[in-house]
Amino acid sequence: MHNYSVAVVGVTGYSGREVDRLLKSHPSIHVNGRFTSKGDGSGIQAYSLDAVKQARPDVVITATEHEVSLRIVPELAADGLRVIDMSGAFRMKDPALYPKWYGFEHTATDLLQQAVYGMPEFFADQVRKAKVVANPGCYATSVILPLVPLYSTGVISPKSLVVVDGKSGVSGAGRHPKLETHFCEVNENLRAYGVLRHRHTPEMLSLLPQALAENFVFTPHLIPITRGILSTIVFQHTEGSSARAALSAAYAKAPFVKVMPDGTLPDIHGVVHTNECQIGIATSGRTTVIVSAIDNLVKGAAGQAIQNLNLMLGCEEGTGLFPRLAQ
Amino acid sequence: MHNYSVAVVGVTGYSGREVDRLLKSHPSIHVNGRFTSKGDGSGIQAYSLDAVKQARPDVVITATEHEVSLRIVPELAADGLRVIDMSGAFRMKDPALYPKWYGFEHTATDLLQQAVYGMPEFFADQVRKAKVVANPGCYATSVILPLVPLYSTGVISPKSLVVVDGKSGVSGAGRHPKLETHFCEVNENLRAYGVLRHRHTPEMLSLLPQALAENFVFTPHLIPITRGILSTIVFQHTEGSSARAALSAAYAKAPFVKVMPDGTLPDIHGVVHTNECQIGIATSGRTTVIVSAIDNLVKGAAGQAIQNLNLMLGCEEGTGLFPRLAQ
Amino acid sequence: MHNYSVAVVGVTGYSGREVDRLLKSHPSIHVNGRFTSKGDGSGIQAYSLDAVKQARPDVVITATEHEVSLRIVPELAADGLRVIDMSGAFRMKDPALYPKWYGFEHTATDLLQQAVYGMPEFFADQVRKAKVVANPGCYATSVILPLVPLYSTGVISPKSLVVVDGKSGVSGAGRHPKLETHFCEVNENLRAYGVLRHRHTPEMLSLLPQALAENFVFTPHLIPITRGILSTIVFQHTEGSSARAALSAAYAKAPFVKVMPDGTLPDIHGVVHTNECQIGIATSGRTTVIVSAIDNLVKGAAGQAIQNLNLMLGCEEGTGLFPRLAQ
Amino acid sequence: MHNYSVAVVGVTGYSGREVDRLLKSHPSIHVNGRFTSKGDGSGIQAYSLDAVKQARPDVVITATEHEVSLRIVPELAADGLRVIDMSGAFRMKDPALYPKWYGFEHTATDLLQQAVYGMPEFFADQVRKAKVVANPGCYATSVILPLVPLYSTGVISPKSLVVVDGKSGVSGAGRHPKLETHFCEVNENLRAYGVLRHRHTPEMLSLLPQALAENFVFTPHLIPITRGILSTIVFQHTEGSSARAALSAAYAKAPFVKVMPDGTLPDIHGVVHTNECQIGIATSGRTTVIVSAIDNLVKGAAGQAIQNLNLMLGCEEGTGLFPRLAQ
Repeated sequence: MHNYSVAVVGVTGYSGREVDRLLKSHPSIHVNGRFTSKGDGSGIQAYSLDAVKQARPDVVITATEHEVSLRIVPELAADGLRVIDMSGAFRMKDPALYPKWYGFEHTATDLLQQAVYGMPEFFADQVRKAKVVANPGCYATSVILPLVPLYSTGVISPKSLVVVDGKSGVSGAGRHPKLETHFCEVNENLRAYGVLRHRHTPEMLSLLPQALAENFVFTPHLIPITRGILSTIVFQHTEGSSARAALSAAYAKAPFVKVMPDGTLPDIHGVVHTNECQIGIATSGRTTVIVSAIDNLVKGAAGQAIQNLNLMLGCEEGTGLFPRLAQ
Repeated sequence: MHNYSVAVVGVTGYSGREVDRLLKSHPSIHVNGRFTSKGDGSGIQAYSLDAVKQARPDVVITATEHEVSLRIVPELAADGLRVIDMSGAFRMKDPALYPKWYGFEHTATDLLQQAVYGMPEFFADQVRKAKVVANPGCYATSVILPLVPLYSTGVISPKSLVVVDGKSGVSGAGRHPKLETHFCEVNENLRAYGVLRHRHTPEMLSLLPQALAENFVFTPHLIPITRGILSTIVFQHTEGSSARAALSAAYAKAPFVKVMPDGTLPDIHGVVHTNECQIGIATSGRTTVIVSAIDNLVKGAAGQAIQNLNLMLGCEEGTGLFPRLAQ
Repeated sequence: MHNYSVAVVGVTGYSGREVDRLLKSHPSIHVNGRFTSKGDGSGIQAYSLDAVKQARPDVVITATEHEVSLRIVPELAADGLRVIDMSGAFRMKDPALYPKWYGFEHTATDLLQQAVYGMPEFFADQVRKAKVVANPGCYATSVILPLVPLYSTGVISPKSLVVVDGKSGVSGAGRHPKLETHFCEVNENLRAYGVLRHRHTPEMLSLLPQALAENFVFTPHLIPITRGILSTIVFQHTEGSSARAALSAAYAKAPFVKVMPDGTLPDIHGVVHTNECQIGIATSGRTTVIVSAIDNLVKGAAGQAIQNLNLMLGCEEGTGLFPRLAQ
Repeated sequence: MHNYSVAVVGVTGYSGREVDRLLKSHPSIHVNGRFTSKGDGSGIQAYSLDAVKQARPDVVITATEHEVSLRIVPELAADGLRVIDMSGAFRMKDPALYPKWYGFEHTATDLLQQAVYGMPEFFADQVRKAKVVANPGCYATSVILPLVPLYSTGVISPKSLVVVDGKSGVSGAGRHPKLETHFCEVNENLRAYGVLRHRHTPEMLSLLPQALAENFVFTPHLIPITRGILSTIVFQHTEGSSARAALSAAYAKAPFVKVMPDGTLPDIHGVVHTNECQIGIATSGRTTVIVSAIDNLVKGAAGQAIQNLNLMLGCEEGTGLFPRLAQ
């Protein structure tokens, strides 16, 4: 029944734990290694490259810090293992971007070129054959899914200002304790951060070749909820074009992207604990407002990883990701 | 010591209660009438026009529903009472806007023309002499304060797209129980509402004569906090202009508007329980991002009402509103 | 594959919606009728007795107000339908208790005697054959599961004071909007309610024949979370007895009751979205403290209903209730 | 106008910050030194004993870790400075308790004997003359205030089981980031901690000489709110006695303890941002339930410190602590 095996490195962080949890109900995959920096003596092993290699999983999922991924993904790949990396270390093709946005020189530039950006809605074929999949960031997922078809069909002109207001729950900041994620600092508070210099911006622009960087403004905000991202996107569409028509056509057959009916908009409760990206559209005169919602730990992390895993292993894309369990 | 008297109508709603609470520590004003639709037998009286008139307060503050204010403010004014109305019934000069945005015909159009929009930063002189003050809406306060100087100094051109993303706590929706404000519906949720058709938009545009409606997009969101509004405003500034210079000059002497130092942005904790509007500014290339924060019940409602009250009664503008008690 | 059919009445409340959601992943049951007081034109029908009867479901689940259940359960039963009632209308055997605790005279006292209290851990055999199952209350579930074995094995003497402090999320108060469940009233607040007169107390005492009412004190509290009940139970155990031994023995084979290892206590995150009741035990000298945790909408409502449904239909008790999806 | 000076050590923690904030509106005291382990270059100085001594404040308030207080309070006292210590280092008279409950040997046992437990409702005279005041813990404040009069008047017999269920907001755990106070770990969660071994228990018992330790059970819980403690206390009162009569008499003239009217109970919203302890009482037959509520950062920490400070300096006890600003 369980035909494939997967090892998860970094299984105690929020993303790694969610991968582990989702795989428990996957009918064709079993987890044959759970690793973290320190073991816990109860099924979670202290991480070592040798231990992962010995497990000989069909795929390794690395839910590790960017710098850790940069170091271990090449070693795992060199050993012949296929990897889905959930960090940012392999998401952008241009190595020159890493010192500025991640604070490190990229030391695996060949593998970086081979790595496939794991957004199944656009790159399913490449994912199926990939050695290394760079699982997309949560903000990027919520923004790229609506924007790619809008740029490619000309609904948005590269000369138009596109304003993206991102709102994220706190689990997106990771499980490591910091003052910024202390309950008392987040609760009953709202704040913008990384304004005009958030590293998800170049990730998004990597996927939006038509966008002009100076016309694309992304402002992330921290919101006192645990899970969920809501991105509100405003622009003036090109004359005669329809965002609804473009998005409905693009996602007519996508199992995990849902364009909401006219007059309705998504909220977090509608997507939490699901792998869905829901996209609502409102238009008046020249203006279009798009609201997109995902669970940052599912479609924005672990669920998308499993979607990629299914493609890599030849399973049906949505296996283990249905049914939805919303709030 | 208490030289002036004030009556509050609608004292059990969130705004009216906050007015009452703030006035308790005002050194020169006492509340000589607390009214609500039903009395409670303990200091709060059942409302009647006669009861309010008999109290002969120096000023009446009406923290009532829009339709109630439309009915009672003219009657109080006709009796010679000065009024600060906290509803939306007297905020926009054009009576034609009311059927569309508030669902009623305006039946006191003469008084509407006389009413002064109670934003002391712009209209202090008129407020001092006003018979009726229309206390601004909470979203409008957080948006107009940064935008008026930016339009008037030409930092924003009317031809530029201005995108305002508003995020409000739940107290802004009032105290009347509705499914939308049920704890379980709001908690762990985020949603946009009134997209491209929120009635605070025409209120804002009334104060922004230079703005072109089709270039001004306001999208409000409901956030699971009790108090606070954070508005994120994005635009491309005119060449060579500086939002920071314009706002610093405009508010150099304003007691309740604070332009944040370069590199810092406001959050809700920094303004909650204060009458301050804090404005942060970030610029890169052609793009400016403004983040403004207020406590919707203080600077966005009750505190601003008291600021207006002080002006009407000849008190120092900030009496009873210092010091701040932030989160 | 779907061998059995179920109709759900009251499908838009929190409990009814959770039943509907859980049944979507049940392999042997399909929902052949979703009813609410008003239909919504999209799969949810306006309720009528005739409509429910025409659906001829194998079981009807009534997730309705107490008074509604009192009226419709007898009619459904008279028509030969088996019913799981999620209200309080059939939980206590003594009809004399209803006027005091529920405010109505019980008008179906014969059926009340036949109804089986649907706690599978104690009454699985009766549930299998039941015509009407009274699904237990959420507080009662969290309290009775630990206390029944402690009284029956003599760990607690009837002469001992037993103090139960219950803490519930807001979904337990239902979806109908009330001031008490308004976000701003609940958020950042804590309060006790129904002190010394909460109607779950007689429900608990009905299952605890050895307990003396005057020695059993239950105090419920409203907590600003959506889901979950944590009950803290304190008493002085009889000399030489062990709560851990009694509970471990009682639940050694229970699929949904988990006695936590020594030194650990349950929390809400460990049970949310699961059908588990987790019970932690701490002892020092003469004192025992028990902490029990459930998801009030699952083990405290919908999950327990499905556990009962499985028994009534001859399915494996846990079908559709695994695996767990914790926070 | 500002006749007295105070230095605050540990001014960036939640308690120290609240002291600093409250003192800003105190009419007779100014803060002449704000210290923390590291300075911030803007009014907050890096702490050194010399710097504090040079400030020559009338009183030093140490809002420091227990171990730090144990080290610096004796040095400040030796230099002739009066101190209010907000840590636990001087609360219990018996030095033998510290290794078990705080993990250190007490190294200033003489000063420990001289230190006055700063609960003004019981020890105002001693506080007035004290060299060192040990400011009470937050849980202890909420529990001792109701219990002391009940034991001393015989409403509670030492032979009776007294069960205290404490529920605290997260600010009580301090500002240092830990996994236990990470937003995602606390939010939508509830848990008990320190069961049968919480160090506030011996602090409480120190003030309750009549209580028998084995009959006194305190169970603290962490609740997802920022501020507030609600303690629910259950016992069987002695025959013919009345908790209401005892507490009403004890606190008839206490400015900051309010016995609630019959039929009403306090909640957190009623006390937050105030220095009040509100106590509600419900009785039925032999059973009494007491619910007491405080703001843990005000009456449970900073407000009580200022109450003590007023006494030490000869100011009116409530100066700077009125009026209340509830939720």
